[in-house]
Amino acid sequence: MHAPQVVERVRALVDRVRAGDRRALARAITLVENGSEELVEVMAGLAPYTGNARVVGLTGSPGVGKSTTTGAIVRAVRDKGLTVAVLAIDPSSPFTGGALLGDRVRMQEHATDTGVFIRSMANRGHLGGLSWATPHALRVLDAAGFDVILVETVGVGQAEVEIAGHADTTVVLSAPGLGDAVQAAKAGVLEIADVLVVNKADRDGARVTLRELRQMVAMKDRDDHEWKPPIVMTVAAQGEGIDELWGRLGEHRAHLESSGELAERRRSRARAEIEAIVLERLRARLGRLEADSGLETLAEEVMKGRRDPYDAAGVLLDEFTEDT
Amino acid sequence: MHAPQVVERVRALVDRVRAGDRRALARAITLVENGSEELVEVMAGLAPYTGNARVVGLTGSPGVGKSTTTGAIVRAVRDKGLTVAVLAIDPSSPFTGGALLGDRVRMQEHATDTGVFIRSMANRGHLGGLSWATPHALRVLDAAGFDVILVETVGVGQAEVEIAGHADTTVVLSAPGLGDAVQAAKAGVLEIADVLVVNKADRDGARVTLRELRQMVAMKDRDDHEWKPPIVMTVAAQGEGIDELWGRLGEHRAHLESSGELAERRRSRARAEIEAIVLERLRARLGRLEADSGLETLAEEVMKGRRDPYDAAGVLLDEFTEDT
Repeated sequence: MHAPQVVERVRALVDRVRAGDRRALARAITLVENGSEELVEVMAGLAPYTGNARVVGLTGSPGVGKSTTTGAIVRAVRDKGLTVAVLAIDPSSPFTGGALLGDRVRMQEHATDTGVFIRSMANRGHLGGLSWATPHALRVLDAAGFDVILVETVGVGQAEVEIAGHADTTVVLSAPGLGDAVQAAKAGVLEIADVLVVNKADRDGARVTLRELRQMVAMKDRDDHEWKPPIVMTVAAQGEGIDELWGRLGEHRAHLESSGELAERRRSRARAEIEAIVLERLRARLGRLEADSGLETLAEEVMKGRRDPYDAAGVLLDEFTEDT
Repeated sequence: MHAPQVVERVRALVDRVRAGDRRALARAITLVENGSEELVEVMAGLAPYTGNARVVGLTGSPGVGKSTTTGAIVRAVRDKGLTVAVLAIDPSSPFTGGALLGDRVRMQEHATDTGVFIRSMANRGHLGGLSWATPHALRVLDAAGFDVILVETVGVGQAEVEIAGHADTTVVLSAPGLGDAVQAAKAGVLEIADVLVVNKADRDGARVTLRELRQMVAMKDRDDHEWKPPIVMTVAAQGEGIDELWGRLGEHRAHLESSGELAERRRSRARAEIEAIVLERLRARLGRLEADSGLETLAEEVMKGRRDPYDAAGVLLDEFTEDT
């Protein structure tokens, strides 16, 4: 498929990723961001070395202190002698340069510590969003041998709900006075929480937020063997509550293992990843077809109300089927 | 394709939607939410009557006052003698009942006014999110003859960036003290703004938020003929600044028309809508295929690192191609 020198380059990259070489890690994640063709070989090379990292997702509205909490967890994990990678998912933005600057600032604290790796990943506007980019980046970090991977996302919305599909354990953060506990409930974010955090717990209103979250957790019917999300109060900026949070993450991990849910979550993640690739390839085929066919004309007709979108889609689908 | 009574029912629904019958509108949007089979006929029936409404998107972090601002715009639009529909997009949630309760509360003010229609739409976790549900719902409201359609979304994230693809004009709201101007910039939300609003402009920090937004707007290179997003200060709860906002929306509309961008945006929206339907259908075919094929086995092998996801995807794709 590729020239020998490409195969050689991919093999070298895979070896360096496995050795935890930071520049190789950065390069591999850039390949993922760009949807590079070499990904196929890179993923094939890394596959045998995956499946060991504990993947913890962190999400919550802007302003709840996600980066600060992530930083505090990184320190706690390092204190326990474990290695940790942070993957920060940013929606599509031309300000990526800023996010990368942020990475460098965050990395400074750990500049001489090879047990920590922090990287933002732009999530360009692919239809289906994160669906294959995040699992690919997780594979890279997993194969590099990190014990723990923290996945941090920006904002409340579809991307946040999707992140739960990639993590073993999902932490949803709130903070007093943002009114976001109720917003999170509306947005379906509470449902994905395995552990809830009230950060900035030294501020006014922390008890109110705690009470709201408790009520919302209590509202859901659960069987006795089902996991009930604990709520942890933290002041991440002072490192308060982080040990308790880490303990709760461990308990959830133990629950996942004893209940068999860990294997189930990972299997369903693999299924979703395969489907995302298949759809991406069908989409690419469709794109090639559209370039030749009359999509422009069809769109014009739909815009003017002369054709309905299903009818237009039918024309394209017929061509697609004939073509394959 | 369908029995005569189904065809008759669809025709009756289309007629009632065109007449602006509220129960028919609610029913048609429920069909969209559920991805009902009848959608194909409903969309075909409505297509000739679309393309007239002005579609304005509103987005911003939780707590900026989106619902309040939407309410104030609804009143301003009605004062001008125009009719208006509100479509509130909620990410997937079991709390949909609550959102619908919210609709009823919001509708109460306009209970006797047939020129206003307000409806939330759950955005179930389709891969690709809003990609076809939102344009379908917009088609329904457009065909019903509303002069203005306001699309309101929850949270900052992928869904918000996507919404800009559906609206003629996108309004991004901020408020003092949430730190969300910078977050919005990071999330790429500022780029989609045609008009920026600092709501709760009577609060401390409003000038700071204004200054931050101004700086971020100034950072972007623009040609002389390009639209530069204006920033409007509002106190939506008191109706302050809403007339100015409406004026800015009108200016943007005039710009879209004179520059030819309106037709371009609508054409690209039609293109995206067609593609979303094609992909949905390919996905359905794939789903039927997966049920028979070894996706479970493939996922198991990928989970255990014995196969990489591209290789597994290749197996499925080969079957897909043979099957069509």
